[in-house]
Parts: sequence; C-alpha cells; structure tokens
Amino acid sequence: MRPSEDDLIARYFAPMAGEGGLGLRDDVALIGVTPGHQIVLTVDAIVEGVHFLAEDPADTVGVKALGVNLSDLAAKGAKPIGFLLTLALPEGWSEPWLARFCEGLGRMAEASGCPLLGGDTVRARGTLTLSITAIGEVPDGRMVPRTGARPGDVIGVTGTVGDATLGLALLVGSPDWHGALRPEHRAFLVDRYREPRPRLSLAPDLRDCANAAMDVSDGLAGDAAKLLGASGVGGMLDLDALPLSGAASLAIRSDETLRDRVATGGDDYEILFTVPERSWDRLASVAGAKDVPVTRIGRVGMPGGPVSFERSGRPVTLSSLSYQHSWGSA
Amino acid sequence: MRPSEDDLIARYFAPMAGEGGLGLRDDVALIGVTPGHQIVLTVDAIVEGVHFLAEDPADTVGVKALGVNLSDLAAKGAKPIGFLLTLALPEGWSEPWLARFCEGLGRMAEASGCPLLGGDTVRARGTLTLSITAIGEVPDGRMVPRTGARPGDVIGVTGTVGDATLGLALLVGSPDWHGALRPEHRAFLVDRYREPRPRLSLAPDLRDCANAAMDVSDGLAGDAAKLLGASGVGGMLDLDALPLSGAASLAIRSDETLRDRVATGGDDYEILFTVPERSWDRLASVAGAKDVPVTRIGRVGMPGGPVSFERSGRPVTLSSLSYQHSWGSA
Repeated sequence: MRPSEDDLIARYFAPMAGEGGLGLRDDVALIGVTPGHQIVLTVDAIVEGVHFLAEDPADTVGVKALGVNLSDLAAKGAKPIGFLLTLALPEGWSEPWLARFCEGLGRMAEASGCPLLGGDTVRARGTLTLSITAIGEVPDGRMVPRTGARPGDVIGVTGTVGDATLGLALLVGSPDWHGALRPEHRAFLVDRYREPRPRLSLAPDLRDCANAAMDVSDGLAGDAAKLLGASGVGGMLDLDALPLSGAASLAIRSDETLRDRVATGGDDYEILFTVPERSWDRLASVAGAKDVPVTRIGRVGMPGGPVSFERSGRPVTLSSLSYQHSWGSA
Repeated sequence: MRPSEDDLIARYFAPMAGEGGLGLRDDVALIGVTPGHQIVLTVDAIVEGVHFLAEDPADTVGVKALGVNLSDLAAKGAKPIGFLLTLALPEGWSEPWLARFCEGLGRMAEASGCPLLGGDTVRARGTLTLSITAIGEVPDGRMVPRTGARPGDVIGVTGTVGDATLGLALLVGSPDWHGALRPEHRAFLVDRYREPRPRLSLAPDLRDCANAAMDVSDGLAGDAAKLLGASGVGGMLDLDALPLSGAASLAIRSDETLRDRVATGGDDYEILFTVPERSWDRLASVAGAKDVPVTRIGRVGMPGGPVSFERSGRPVTLSSLSYQHSWGSA
C-alpha cells in the first residue's frame, strides 16, 4: 500500500521544514518579515521531459527544482526565507525516488538557508510536475529590478555560460564533439545541466552596485535582450568576451557551430547584471573574494537604441536568441 | 501559430496583475507588509481529472483554483494580498479555453481583492495542472491556528456541508436520487462543486473569537478529526446538527445513505472552527450580519480524549471519515 500524504509529510517533508512551516500541520505557513524589508516572491515549475529528463538522478531533480527559484532571488539581491512545494506525482511514482528527490531538495535547502514552509502533494495525470514558490526579503526599495539598466553601464555576467546546454546535448544524444572531451569534462557539463548553483552569496553586492539584474535561464543573448528591452535601452554584447569553461572551450574547438549555442542555450542560472563603470572594480573584487568570477561582456547603449551582438568588433546575427522550452506549440 | 508566453502574459495575465506584480515584467513579485503584521502563505494545486472535470466550464476552473486557496487564508483570519499562478498547459490547450479560465480567475481575484502577482507557464506532459500560491497577512500573533481548540469550546461550521460532493455525484453519473431534485436544485449542487465561495468576510471575526479553525476541503468528519487531533483534544460531533441546504435535504430524503456522504464528502470549502461558549453569540451575530450562517455542530472534549460522532444522541461509526482525492495509490 502506498503511503498517505500524511505519511509522506512525516517521513520526508517535516525533516526539512522550517519554523514558519508550523510543523506542516496547518494548511498555511506563517512568516515574520524583518522590519524595513519587503517580501520578494518567485515561482518556477519544472516538468519531467521538458525541464529535466526522466533519467536524471532524483536528487538532482530536487536540487534543480529549488535552485532555479533561488537563482531568481539571488539576481534580485534578496535573501531566502523559505519555500513552498507543489508536487504532482504520476501514477508510477516510487518511494525510493521520492526519498532521493527529498535528499537533493533538502541539501539545497540547507546550503541556502531556505527551509520548506509548506506544500501540496497531488496526483498527476501525466509526468511528474513540480512547482516551487521561493520567498525572500530585501531592504525596502533595494530590490535589483530588471528595468534599471542605464546608458553607459557595463554589462556583466557571473561564472561561465553554455555549459548546461552542452551537458543536455550530451545527455540526449552523441554529438560529434563528444569525443573531443575527456570523461571529467563531460561529467562537468552534465552536472551543470542538472544542478544549478544559485549565486546567493552575491545578492548583497548586487544590491550595492547593480542597476539591473536577472538570472540567465533561457540563454544569455535572449535574456540580455529582455533585460535591455525592459529597461528601455539598447546595448552591445561582445560574444568573444563570454566566459567559457575549459570543457565548453574544448567542445567549441571541435565544433565551431557551438559558438552560437553557448550564447543562446538555456539553463545557465548565472546572473546577468549592469553596473555603472565606476562600480565595476568594487563588484569584481568582492565577487572574486567570494569565488564568484564576474566577466564584462558588453555595454548598455542609449534609450530606445538597438541591441547588437559582435564578434571581433563586427556585428553578428544569431538565428535564435534563446532556447525555448517549447511549451506552447506542438 | 500558438501565442508565446510573453503574448499570454500581455493578453490575459497582465490585466489582472496588481502593483506588486511589477507589470509581470520581472521574474519576481515584490510586496510590502503592513507594519505589525505577519505573512500567511498557502499553496494548493488542482489537476484536471482529479480535482475538476475536463468538462467543467473553464471560468469555473479559474474560480476554483483561486477559491480553494483563499478559503485557507479566510480560515486563518488572514487578509489576501495577492497570488502566484503556475499553469502547466497540455499539448491540446486552446486559447478560447484559456481566455475563459482567466475570466473566472480574474472575477475571483477582483471579488476578493487578491490580484495576480506573478507566475510561470509551462508545458504539461499530461492533463492541465494548476498550482496557486496565495499570500495574505494577519496582525502579529493573531493567526487562527489549527492547533488551538480548547476543552469545552463549541465546534461550529459556516454555510452548509455536503452540497459539493452531491454536485460531483450528479456530474459523473445519474444517481437514483437525481429524479427527486428539481433542475434548480441540481444546478445549485453542481455550482457548489465548481465554484467555492471562500468565507473571507469572516476572517476578522474568526481572529477575534475562534481558538482554532481550518477550511473544510476533504469532508467535514475527517477534517474535524484532524483539527481536534492537531489540538490534542477529543470531541463530539452531532451529525444531526450538520447544516444542510434544501437541495441536500431533498436528496437525503430520497436516499438515506447520503446522510453519511454529506458528512464525509469533499470540496465544501466552508470553515470549521472552535470558539469558547461565551463567544458563540457574538460570532454568530456578526456572521449573520455578513450573510454567513454559522451552525453549532459539536463540542470539544478533554485533552487526549476520543473523537466521536453521534446521531439522535447515540454514537455512530462512519466507514470512512474523508473523501480522498486518491492521489497516491493506483
């Protein structure tokens, strides 16, 4: 006999619950807010076969489900308070899968100081679907908006881009460039696809320095165009400047067409931001001290101006700016 | 060609968005909290074929998705601030369906002062699945818990119970008692299944008077046992005292077996609460003035005592205390 929802709560969810979760014995969570702060909320769902693969280890699904939401909080300069989980379990779910999923989820919750506060478990009529609402707080008026980029700002990004999309390519096929990589390179890329690492440590520094920020989830080029568009400004991105991992560089050396893919593939979960030129050095220095490399990749242009991409100082056209999870069309 | 997620946001979601939704142009929502208040959060998902029927009019699905969450806020004495929506759309979704869904959702949002603050739209691999996180606030320390019932408290419930489960029975079959009802009775019961009416107007009075409360979603008998159990007390429910609508009374007159069903069927979305005897009259009077009838249905017993159900002063045994959405077992 399958465990009841109450059994699941007692066995798997209560151990990762925070104080505001009221022991998961009420229908709601109750949280206090630090005086002088506002609440930041974000919700992101992931669906088996769309955002993760049925074969992905269950713990990595837990890491990803929470990680993609924490990445949004980090980009806004917010500190996590907790999260709510909706779990739609398909007919054939197994308790070992769920146990391992919760292990990954709990690991990410613990590492980020973001406990479970509540949730709902329902039966899915289809594949596993997860939705997480993450709750954070920022000092009043200090959230880093998407809309604040100013002409002349430096455009920067954390970490490296394109690793996750290459990792996904390795998981779903055997691309020609596969052989150019050593096993540890392949493992690195796959790990980057499966386990986003939200840049929470950088949140206070983004609040101090950045005019605008968002997390990169649908491909750097498209997300940069979105941020600049939301801010009502143009800008230029130097695609030669994109920070690449050693593994991604090797793959590109073997297949030049990947050069566009790393700029447009999804699932990076790095932070794209703009800062005034005068603040760049300060941000780069504190970020470096926190082991979060940041790289200059472009410059914000004039209000209403065009968004352009360059290589070797010449404009290039990307066939598609973003990866689409193609949720709509068949 | 299907509209993109950005198109859907502009056409359907932005019109019902509140200020904290930042125009649905950022990845997050940002809300302020009234000084001296705490945040109450709840999440409930509904799945086509489990919590609603594929044939249900789309606007009623919108009403239900938000209504079941607002019902939780009401039971806790909270005032709604806004909500986040996760919409997992199956392959075959249609824009007219979505438009009508948003009409119902927007109607409930407007009526309850609970605007849309953000969300995520993904592709479902299965039937339509919706998850809503509702956010509210209560004065510090004033949330009505599930765990506060005290020996001697009166157990009360709002409105009438059992209508929704009878409505569902009419929708999925043609029960013998069908003929005992006039068309307007049948329409009433079906409407009660499809469109919960969260008792938000009673929230401040529950804060003032009630020791414990929860909304009735899985059947009155089982939910009462849950509330008493969470409070660590026993109690007695007089099943003869359950408030029934005219339509439900007629159905029971035609089929005596329905007497148990109205006490154990799901989807009532009324509020079950306990109040000290001395506060009953005050609560009943303010509730009546707000057109929310409340009925005494039992009495809280001693700590650790049994939970019993009676009819005509004699104990009865219910074969099952609650309706299960049977999400787990096959």
